[in-house]
Amino acid sequence: MKININSEIFAPEVQMEGAYKVRMKILIGPEDGSGNIIMRHFFIAPGGNTPYHQHNYEHVIKVERGSGIAVDENGQEHELSVGQSLFVRPGDLHQFRNPNNDDFEFLCIIPNPGKKG
Amino acid sequence: MKININSEIFAPEVQMEGAYKVRMKILIGPEDGSGNIIMRHFFIAPGGNTPYHQHNYEHVIKVERGSGIAVDENGQEHELSVGQSLFVRPGDLHQFRNPNNDDFEFLCIIPNPGKKG
Repeated sequence: MKININSEIFAPEVQMEGAYKVRMKILIGPEDGSGNIIMRHFFIAPGGNTPYHQHNYEHVIKVERGSGIAVDENGQEHELSVGQSLFVRPGDLHQFRNPNNDDFEFLCIIPNPGKKG
Repeated sequence: MKININSEIFAPEVQMEGAYKVRMKILIGPEDGSGNIIMRHFFIAPGGNTPYHQHNYEHVIKVERGSGIAVDENGQEHELSVGQSLFVRPGDLHQFRNPNNDDFEFLCIIPNPGKKG
């Protein structure tokens, strides 16, 4: 059993191309012994966004704070806010944007890409 | 992309032997198309507990509300509260208890047992 204090985990700026004003911390991951599941906490500052992209693994998401926009595989926008959860299928295009004045935060859980390729 | 409204999902009493005053809802799971990862929200009422048990898959946990006790594989108790995350390895004994006066709630993410056996 490994217990982490979330506030003690650093959240660096996400360096991925197309990411703007996005930070991410790993709450539970391989360093904690988790070989299959990685739990990440994303912070999108006002005006920020993740890239509109796709990959061969899924996203399991729960909004933690604020609200924002999820863009789906057809380019359609959906409002997302606290109290909502979301599933993105492997291979589906997706993007998250924060057009609001407060931080937009969500958990984004993925299978360990090191195992899933 | 599938969006769920958490409050609209029913949280039935957990029927597992040794579970007492525990309810659980699936925020994202197979019904949403998630074949690898299941995100569950547990509610332990004051005085309640999960069984002290083990299984061949891991738990990735984030406390959502209140505080409680996590019992580890050696029977040792750890206080758990909002702002903490926890990893339970496959095969490790574990239990969660709520000795307090408020609900103890946490996310508990697992690989899909239907796939992992």
